[in-house]
Amino acid sequence: MDDIKTLISLDEETTDDDEPVVPKVAVKSSPPPTTLVDILKDDITTTSTGVGVGNNSGTLMPGNNDNDVPALLDHTPSYSGNSALNGNLPPNDRDNAESEPIFRVRSRTAAASTPNYESLDYEVCENKLFQDEQKKRLTERFSLRKDIIRWIIFIQIGIITALIACSIDIIIEELSELKYMFLMTSVEKNVPQTDFTGGDLVVPFLYWILLSVVPVAFGAAMVTYIEPITAGSGIPQVKSYLNGVKIPRIVRIKTLAVKAIGVITSVVGGLAGGKEGPMIHAGAVVAAGISQGKSTTFVKDFRVFKAFRDDHEKRDFVLGGGAAGVSAAFGAPIGGMLFSLEEAASFWNQNLIWRTLVASIISVFTLNLVLSTYHGLNDFTFTGLFNLGKFDQPLKFDYFELPIFMLLGITGGLLGAAWNSLNTKINGFRKRYIPWKIGKVCEAVVVAMFGVTLACTMIYFINDCRPLGNDPTIHPVQLFCEDNEYNAVAALWFQTPEATVRSLFHDPPGSHKILTLTMFTIVYYVLSCATFGLNVSLGVFIPTALVGAAWGRLFAMVTYYLFPETEFLHPGKYALIGAAANLGGVLRMTISLSVILMETTGVETSFFFPLIIALISAKWVGDYFNEGIYDTQIEVNHVPILPWEPLPQYKGLTAREILSSPVVCIKLRDSAHYIYNVLKKCDHNGFPVVDDVQGVHRSQGRVCGIVLRSQLIVILLKSLYVENSRFWLPETSIQTFRDVYPRYPSIESVRKLDDKINYTVDLAMFMNPSPVRVNAHDSVPRIFQVFRALGLRHMLVINNENRISGIITRRDFIYK
Amino acid sequence: MDDIKTLISLDEETTDDDEPVVPKVAVKSSPPPTTLVDILKDDITTTSTGVGVGNNSGTLMPGNNDNDVPALLDHTPSYSGNSALNGNLPPNDRDNAESEPIFRVRSRTAAASTPNYESLDYEVCENKLFQDEQKKRLTERFSLRKDIIRWIIFIQIGIITALIACSIDIIIEELSELKYMFLMTSVEKNVPQTDFTGGDLVVPFLYWILLSVVPVAFGAAMVTYIEPITAGSGIPQVKSYLNGVKIPRIVRIKTLAVKAIGVITSVVGGLAGGKEGPMIHAGAVVAAGISQGKSTTFVKDFRVFKAFRDDHEKRDFVLGGGAAGVSAAFGAPIGGMLFSLEEAASFWNQNLIWRTLVASIISVFTLNLVLSTYHGLNDFTFTGLFNLGKFDQPLKFDYFELPIFMLLGITGGLLGAAWNSLNTKINGFRKRYIPWKIGKVCEAVVVAMFGVTLACTMIYFINDCRPLGNDPTIHPVQLFCEDNEYNAVAALWFQTPEATVRSLFHDPPGSHKILTLTMFTIVYYVLSCATFGLNVSLGVFIPTALVGAAWGRLFAMVTYYLFPETEFLHPGKYALIGAAANLGGVLRMTISLSVILMETTGVETSFFFPLIIALISAKWVGDYFNEGIYDTQIEVNHVPILPWEPLPQYKGLTAREILSSPVVCIKLRDSAHYIYNVLKKCDHNGFPVVDDVQGVHRSQGRVCGIVLRSQLIVILLKSLYVENSRFWLPETSIQTFRDVYPRYPSIESVRKLDDKINYTVDLAMFMNPSPVRVNAHDSVPRIFQVFRALGLRHMLVINNENRISGIITRRDFIYK
Repeated sequence: MDDIKTLISLDEETTDDDEPVVPKVAVKSSPPPTTLVDILKDDITTTSTGVGVGNNSGTLMPGNNDNDVPALLDHTPSYSGNSALNGNLPPNDRDNAESEPIFRVRSRTAAASTPNYESLDYEVCENKLFQDEQKKRLTERFSLRKDIIRWIIFIQIGIITALIACSIDIIIEELSELKYMFLMTSVEKNVPQTDFTGGDLVVPFLYWILLSVVPVAFGAAMVTYIEPITAGSGIPQVKSYLNGVKIPRIVRIKTLAVKAIGVITSVVGGLAGGKEGPMIHAGAVVAAGISQGKSTTFVKDFRVFKAFRDDHEKRDFVLGGGAAGVSAAFGAPIGGMLFSLEEAASFWNQNLIWRTLVASIISVFTLNLVLSTYHGLNDFTFTGLFNLGKFDQPLKFDYFELPIFMLLGITGGLLGAAWNSLNTKINGFRKRYIPWKIGKVCEAVVVAMFGVTLACTMIYFINDCRPLGNDPTIHPVQLFCEDNEYNAVAALWFQTPEATVRSLFHDPPGSHKILTLTMFTIVYYVLSCATFGLNVSLGVFIPTALVGAAWGRLFAMVTYYLFPETEFLHPGKYALIGAAANLGGVLRMTISLSVILMETTGVETSFFFPLIIALISAKWVGDYFNEGIYDTQIEVNHVPILPWEPLPQYKGLTAREILSSPVVCIKLRDSAHYIYNVLKKCDHNGFPVVDDVQGVHRSQGRVCGIVLRSQLIVILLKSLYVENSRFWLPETSIQTFRDVYPRYPSIESVRKLDDKINYTVDLAMFMNPSPVRVNAHDSVPRIFQVFRALGLRHMLVINNENRISGIITRRDFIYK
Repeated sequence: MDDIKTLISLDEETTDDDEPVVPKVAVKSSPPPTTLVDILKDDITTTSTGVGVGNNSGTLMPGNNDNDVPALLDHTPSYSGNSALNGNLPPNDRDNAESEPIFRVRSRTAAASTPNYESLDYEVCENKLFQDEQKKRLTERFSLRKDIIRWIIFIQIGIITALIACSIDIIIEELSELKYMFLMTSVEKNVPQTDFTGGDLVVPFLYWILLSVVPVAFGAAMVTYIEPITAGSGIPQVKSYLNGVKIPRIVRIKTLAVKAIGVITSVVGGLAGGKEGPMIHAGAVVAAGISQGKSTTFVKDFRVFKAFRDDHEKRDFVLGGGAAGVSAAFGAPIGGMLFSLEEAASFWNQNLIWRTLVASIISVFTLNLVLSTYHGLNDFTFTGLFNLGKFDQPLKFDYFELPIFMLLGITGGLLGAAWNSLNTKINGFRKRYIPWKIGKVCEAVVVAMFGVTLACTMIYFINDCRPLGNDPTIHPVQLFCEDNEYNAVAALWFQTPEATVRSLFHDPPGSHKILTLTMFTIVYYVLSCATFGLNVSLGVFIPTALVGAAWGRLFAMVTYYLFPETEFLHPGKYALIGAAANLGGVLRMTISLSVILMETTGVETSFFFPLIIALISAKWVGDYFNEGIYDTQIEVNHVPILPWEPLPQYKGLTAREILSSPVVCIKLRDSAHYIYNVLKKCDHNGFPVVDDVQGVHRSQGRVCGIVLRSQLIVILLKSLYVENSRFWLPETSIQTFRDVYPRYPSIESVRKLDDKINYTVDLAMFMNPSPVRVNAHDSVPRIFQVFRALGLRHMLVINNENRISGIITRRDFIYK
């Protein structure tokens, strides 16, 4: 390295003593070598020409340590010492023919042994074709029209998401009603009312098992065999998508169908989960589907909304869809919008916030309309949906209760952190020991049976009878109780989890024994932890709220038991605070959760304060131990999601230390053959376009753009060569590329180019001429900011002469 | 131009037929020549050496029209046709001595004849000094400590903002109470109860005039003579600041003091304005003050929070302060946060949203605590503040009312747009015909007298007596009415505007005559329009809400009068919708306004839907005609605020067409003398640092960084020369530069460098080595996105050889 520097300094006119000294030693805190050291695949040589080229195969070329680089000084005069490592290849074979490309492929993703997620192209490629289209559309009218269509799409998203949410809602409600009515009848029939000491619970138990296992097995099988991506709540996937990671099949119609059926079967089957998360996912799918005006599942192109067919536009719609989904799930428009902003959105602007809000409102309105009609409620009066039941009287609190709320928040944080950690361990176990599909289905069945058994055991052993009357239990079971009494334990279990949350919030004081709630809290805590991560479509919101509501109410009951003279202990209030605390501990959201809880329970805005106190305490305590459940899931699945701030390990590093090099480049006018071979031999998705190339050393040319793999494939497929440009030039537009979006063909679909061996491709009109370029000495926090703010996929590292030093992609920022 | 192109193509090795053709003709929609054509100042020559240099003085060199550029081809081989216009200077005088700088100054701001606003440095300058500091602070502990301090500051901001808001609140309330009690007593005394036909209103009228004129004159004089920036609501200024424009004296403690006194006097004086806007400004000042740990007004440095002394950190605190201010003004924490996000924030991230929310909540809580204590309310029970009064019973609505709400929204949009337009015209008139300070004070007095006279006339001529009893009027005036009756007109006028809004929302049906409200609406509409823009500290929220509430209530009354059998016409509900519609029409905010209205009136979350319907209709209709009042004010004052999207005129343009050139560059190691002269002769704020310079043609060097004017001045002031580096090098750190933040000395404070004629400055450790660079052919929408997302101040346009073509600053994006 030193001699290179000496050589270079001969060329320099303005050597500066005080120029920032770049540390030459590898930084201690840099990521482990297994992931960061560049592992070069076997060199790729063109085999079609039959000319084997000696090309230094086997040379290891780590990208982040200057001392190991066997770089030789090229004829190009390097400008400064800092730019010596500009990815120059050893300059032998310089005189080989143009048709014999020499390049190395560095595949970091192969080395990392993680699922190979790709980035989305959130950056708009402003190539010549795009500009041509723009020019045609410079008129005021066109841009107004596009704006109006955008609004229409957002409104459609709201309506359709709400309709789907309604259908799921109604089906779950009806089926659950049937199921639990049947079970209750069976219990009443088999347990004689006169015998209080026990009875034959075996038959109802078996019925219960059956009615749980069949739907759960069906749902798990669908998820496992048809569309595994639908497992879980879908929120981590939507979040990743919005962050810019391509999650395969996440926004397809088939996914939506499986998800809808999956969530219905699971909730009806009695698993400890909710339908809220899946609805968010459903909203996202609806948004992606509608905005594109075509369906790849049904191979149908409606030929509308063509201008919105790119990742950038789609992202904004998906954000709106997610918000509409939350709104429909909870009947909470502001909550939905805030949820999108707080949890999901990685990019944000003012117009987007308005459109998202409109989608949310339309969604809630449609939901209200349909559900009011369905339930035959109050003639044309809009009341709002309170999924978790409306508190009849305003909840008040005294100042001295604030420390109590804080304490509950801390408890929630601890329980939530423990839950997250336990759940992650269980899922790790699952991943390792249950790799077979049938095993996953069986596991879901086992968990369902386990839940039913625990519930039955509780009902059997705990004797908690309450007088019938002033309580909202719709179908009280008399089981083991005297006449005019009902079994409070059975009441907790014989309904959907959502209904149970409602009971805990609104049942009058003294509806349960302390023992009942204690046991229920423990059982449900364990059960929900075992459930989330099963191969079924289920959300985590409701079970978490349920556990929190249970221990919150329990807290009020115990305190009242200890200090019977206290007056402030409204059990419903503490159930609500407990739910907030537990949700905060598990999900780590604050603003949107508090607003959602307010909107779904209709509490006063003044009660916002205790809710947020509990939520923030929970979040802070929980964050001390681990991340929120969604982020944990994302991390466990190795999804390369970009955080809000650069990871602390990256502070103090420069671009030089994280870049990937050498880079496979393509000349501005290159042979079709070379491009074909590049695509065939390496799986990179972006190729810098260079110019001013000496011989075959493309990576030493000056950067003039970047071209995507997908674009190159389209070029080859459609034979857009210079030599036959008179055929395609007049009719080629940006639409040619948009037509194949989003499922680009693979290089395999391009047939071999033997007959067109001398054809060339001119990338000038196809490439993105404005790639984002940074210098090798730029600090990582800074380039991270640029990368994230602009939603980039590739970032080129250049030297001071505009020649390529390396390339930085999403993955380079997230090694831990 | 053509021959240049030909010349260049001789040098090119890889000319491409299909390279994106950049339009060479000036775009039609480009800004008018008075603003965009580059006007070159007289050339600057060094006079200290006494060698006059012939340097083409008087040559006009417009930057955005290739055809007119008299650029000559330089010896530097240009890489492509696109980069021909790289700001090369005519290459005579090439062989002059280094010490005789030749450069041209292009001052676009001078030509634009607008106030010369500067940008803030939101971009963090990651120079060597910064990196050195970072390295010391790489420890986990330090970054945790910084995080904790940041939270503490946000909490402090919340508390102090709330305390200030409380003080203003209480003082206004007490003084208004005194004023109106006195007036009522005077009325009762002078108008005999037995004489219903009229009475001697002259004495109370004169008292009223006096009690209005004295405080208004005092307030207006303070604002005009002490701190003119405090005029108006302050929201446009805070918004501009957060967008990155340096508004002089906007966040000083003196400003805060004048603003507080100004708003108290104006509201007590009875002007048609509210205290809400000023409170937001107050919060911003508090935030800026606390976070810096020093006060320049009191010349006191507390030596704390030093790490937060840059524009970037300050911005985030100011956002939190603004949110805390809104929250304190309305008692609306979520509304406050959303207001900040929707109206004020130009940059956003997840952590910021959380901190902002915490500041808002703390603020509301403190306010509640203090005001509850002050009013001696409900023993330690937190009730929430409902500034606009809490609706006793839940507001319900039927589906068929939705079109009515929409109609009200449209009305609000029309009235609001008319209001904005009228107000802008009045302010234009003011600016033109009332330039003298004393005139501005007199104008405020005249408007105050005008208001009182109108009110008196209304009270005198309209006979609207209502029975005493079931209404919330605290001090009913019997004026002209029978016993057991009170004068409803006087009730509207004898209180602060805020209290009147409360009356309109909550007075029982039948509290006013239709004629009363009609007259009141018209009078207040005109009055508020004349008031906003006076040289007093006043917000526009309350008068706008008042006008809306008046016509909303009026609508309900008229409809009820026409169709007496209707049942849904709760006048308070329609007053609320009317207020929302009018606010939407004037302010053009939707989400935050609806949440604020909900939080301040305690309506059900289900009522969110009608509010947002009205607001969105109003916004859409209003946007058809003009912009919101804050944006209008910003535009009228020529503040160079960056919109969310590039202006439509810029679509289809490239960087080449908006850049400023030639650029004054400085060499990496340049003579102190040259730097001194540059600073003295031109007022640019950023200078590209170049290297690889041939002779004196600095603008042909390769770009290696950018240095700010403020940095250069500090370097000269502290004599940080290479020749005496042994003295200063060990003790110079980033702190040296931070110490003078934010009031950088001017170049005048640097004494002449005659004795140090040969000293040089090495910028390597001071400059920002990572300026954002774009190409001349990049499209403007794209570079706008980069500029805005990164909050830049300068953006360098380079050619493919990394040589400078021009520079782009904020102003280049906003010519209309």
